[in-house]
Amino acid sequence: MDVFLLIDLQKYKLKCKKESNIDATFPLLNLYFCALILSMQKVLVLGAGRSSSALIRYLLEKSTSLDWTITVADQSYDAIILKTKNHPRSLAVSLNIYDEYERRQLIEQNDIIVSLMPPQLHELVAIDCLELKKSLVTASYVSPAMKKLNDDVKNSGLLFLFEMGLDPGIDHMSAMYMLQRIAQVEGKIQSFKSYTGGLVATESDNNPWHYKITWNPRNVVLAGQGVAQFLENGIVKYTPYQRLFLETEKFNLNDHGKYEGYANRDSLPYIELYGLEGIQTMKRGTFRRPGFCKAWNALVQLGLTDDSYKIQNPEKLTISQWLEMFVPSGKGSLKKRTAETLGLKKESSVIEKMEWMGLFSDKKIEMANSTPAQILQSLMEASWKMEDHDKDLVIMHHEIGYEQRGEKFIHNATFSMIGEDSTYTAMAKTVGLPLGIVVKLILQNKISLTGVQIPTMPEIYEAALEELKTYGVSFDEETKRN
Amino acid sequence: MDVFLLIDLQKYKLKCKKESNIDATFPLLNLYFCALILSMQKVLVLGAGRSSSALIRYLLEKSTSLDWTITVADQSYDAIILKTKNHPRSLAVSLNIYDEYERRQLIEQNDIIVSLMPPQLHELVAIDCLELKKSLVTASYVSPAMKKLNDDVKNSGLLFLFEMGLDPGIDHMSAMYMLQRIAQVEGKIQSFKSYTGGLVATESDNNPWHYKITWNPRNVVLAGQGVAQFLENGIVKYTPYQRLFLETEKFNLNDHGKYEGYANRDSLPYIELYGLEGIQTMKRGTFRRPGFCKAWNALVQLGLTDDSYKIQNPEKLTISQWLEMFVPSGKGSLKKRTAETLGLKKESSVIEKMEWMGLFSDKKIEMANSTPAQILQSLMEASWKMEDHDKDLVIMHHEIGYEQRGEKFIHNATFSMIGEDSTYTAMAKTVGLPLGIVVKLILQNKISLTGVQIPTMPEIYEAALEELKTYGVSFDEETKRN
Repeated sequence: MDVFLLIDLQKYKLKCKKESNIDATFPLLNLYFCALILSMQKVLVLGAGRSSSALIRYLLEKSTSLDWTITVADQSYDAIILKTKNHPRSLAVSLNIYDEYERRQLIEQNDIIVSLMPPQLHELVAIDCLELKKSLVTASYVSPAMKKLNDDVKNSGLLFLFEMGLDPGIDHMSAMYMLQRIAQVEGKIQSFKSYTGGLVATESDNNPWHYKITWNPRNVVLAGQGVAQFLENGIVKYTPYQRLFLETEKFNLNDHGKYEGYANRDSLPYIELYGLEGIQTMKRGTFRRPGFCKAWNALVQLGLTDDSYKIQNPEKLTISQWLEMFVPSGKGSLKKRTAETLGLKKESSVIEKMEWMGLFSDKKIEMANSTPAQILQSLMEASWKMEDHDKDLVIMHHEIGYEQRGEKFIHNATFSMIGEDSTYTAMAKTVGLPLGIVVKLILQNKISLTGVQIPTMPEIYEAALEELKTYGVSFDEETKRN
Repeated sequence: MDVFLLIDLQKYKLKCKKESNIDATFPLLNLYFCALILSMQKVLVLGAGRSSSALIRYLLEKSTSLDWTITVADQSYDAIILKTKNHPRSLAVSLNIYDEYERRQLIEQNDIIVSLMPPQLHELVAIDCLELKKSLVTASYVSPAMKKLNDDVKNSGLLFLFEMGLDPGIDHMSAMYMLQRIAQVEGKIQSFKSYTGGLVATESDNNPWHYKITWNPRNVVLAGQGVAQFLENGIVKYTPYQRLFLETEKFNLNDHGKYEGYANRDSLPYIELYGLEGIQTMKRGTFRRPGFCKAWNALVQLGLTDDSYKIQNPEKLTISQWLEMFVPSGKGSLKKRTAETLGLKKESSVIEKMEWMGLFSDKKIEMANSTPAQILQSLMEASWKMEDHDKDLVIMHHEIGYEQRGEKFIHNATFSMIGEDSTYTAMAKTVGLPLGIVVKLILQNKISLTGVQIPTMPEIYEAALEELKTYGVSFDEETKRN
């Protein structure tokens, strides 16, 4: 066993040397090696991207008192060190996730695995976890393929917990907690609406879109493609992409600000998942600041978010030449014709937002063959960049309608959090803290649940919400007659 | 050889008896058997659907004088007999196209194969034809997989001719003929636009959409999905589906009528295929009657043409309940809200067309789990049905801009044809006659071309257009200074 680990260590050393200039890896690795042998429990975090900062900080804060070792693996060694800051209880491992030998060794040497990898890689990790008998926690949606593992996971006495971030995650937990409280006073739930937004804090909001990128930019560009499905007043509603950003609902949440919400994917499965059979309205959605959706719809209508075909040699084009490809030819400037195509005036705030984003500019596109969505994403990443001093905002709002002893009530609950800075964002905190907390609960044997789960069980959400409160995750709640 | 054929014949007899009530099959088959042995050349037509009538009539008309036998194979025996009418030179074979043994035997026993099968089945047939050394003719678009066979087909001395119908087909041939004539007088082509429509003749036009179904109804519902690409004034233009039916061009073709055209798929490859490198405009499109596109766009915007997901248990819904799923809830009737969603008045001609189609009706949907597009198709098939006495219309229009000795010209060419009845439609004639004619040219050894081709070569189009003229396929042409 020792020999085996020593060989491995040699391999890590070589790898670290090759891919990083940090000389401190030698003592760090030796230290880790001792810690790994001696410490009681070992956590593996796969992925050190944007959303990992608060998770890693949480785990390292607990690591000394709870005797944990935290191994963080990512293809970028530097990204890991930025988050672990060479904490003595941490090990940074530069990993190619497709290297089966290395991946499985890492999983085998740890007690619990947190995956922040892109969703399509979870399957790879989940199969290893099942074979090597390790529990798995992620913030991603549970896929049908993962659901199929339920029996095997259960029979192995393991827990694979999905959707344990913000949305999905805190939304499920807070909703279930409130729904259960209402059930306890014999309230009969009639409607459930829930919206979440990952936005920029007002104090850092200095652009006409009132938006900056605080999570995966590709998901921002492709958001809403396909059809949105929800239940409204007893009728299943389908909203196609071409109308999604037009059919928004407006919300004035007082101190929490004003928002508009569009429907998010398929809300229908949550009727069963939340135990709300017979409910009249079930709608989950996404918040944007007022005015965003109308302008985003313009980009959708023009075809700029299409990811299904490639533009040949866009590097030969300026951005306005690229936009010209989507606007009918005719008389007048590109701006005038764009406005006409969209049924708008040239002075409209939508055109202003497009201009601010550089869509009418003569800047060169610096990309080889790419889809319209990829080109738009590169524009967005430049113009909606979070600066180092910028703070983000996470906002979540539930509206629960219910009947109690013949009377109708509406329960409103709103939570918002402003990030600390551009690393410890509210997004990273609200995604990472639930993951960190549930890792702790599992390692402390406080959860007996097994199988493939999402956090809709009191066993998980009661303890998790309790601890999340100490990190500022708490809802302003209000019940009104309806 | 004789014994082999007798066994086969026995098999056909049993098959015919099993699947049809027509007792005449015995003498017919015996007659055919003699004909097959004695006749010089044998043509196999795969598919006896809507578009086969004129092809089969043409081939049978020529069969006696040219000493041909025409075998028609389809899964429906009755569909074949409707077209062959037990002509003594015809054989009807009930065929499961996936039955490799029967399919290959049929192909082997014939000299040339015409496939009217759905495009995805051409690959199956093409591989057999290559192995059994038979030439193949179809009206479908040549796929990338078929293009790859070019060298093998050429080396076997065979011709696989695709796109030999109306559109694609007559459009290619007539365009190439005109382009070549302009080149002969040293005209330099600057722009090429071409539109085709399969519509209902004015005399049979009794609905507000001015449309009936004269070809594959599924293709009608899904038309235009994906992005349309064309070249306009030197700029590549992309028109997304959500704007395709809004960005139409209007045409007044005098005696031929008024139309509106929307861009059809990807026009860009035709620049090279027509030898028009350096051209400024290349656009191919589809004609509808004025007003159709605006109303069809309403169905697109509502999401009714979506084929990507299924509605659960639509048999429990009326059509208006189904429509309600795509319209935001609110105050007022479904019709009023539908109009509002589309930015229209309740009295708008678009809403009138929707109402005429039965979209606001309380009729039950008689389908199990289906996509919105499938449900819409069933509605369309009922309301846009060609009655027996109805006549259809095929319309094709080219606009070719060119420069000659410093002067600019525009050459307009328009062809239209009205069908004989609901069997010998203009669509069936304009798809089938080019196929029939080229079969004749090939059997008469008048075409030396080999490989995988489309009819852009003078060797094919000159003779084919000449004979098509005698069937009424001729263009009204006019050249004007521009």
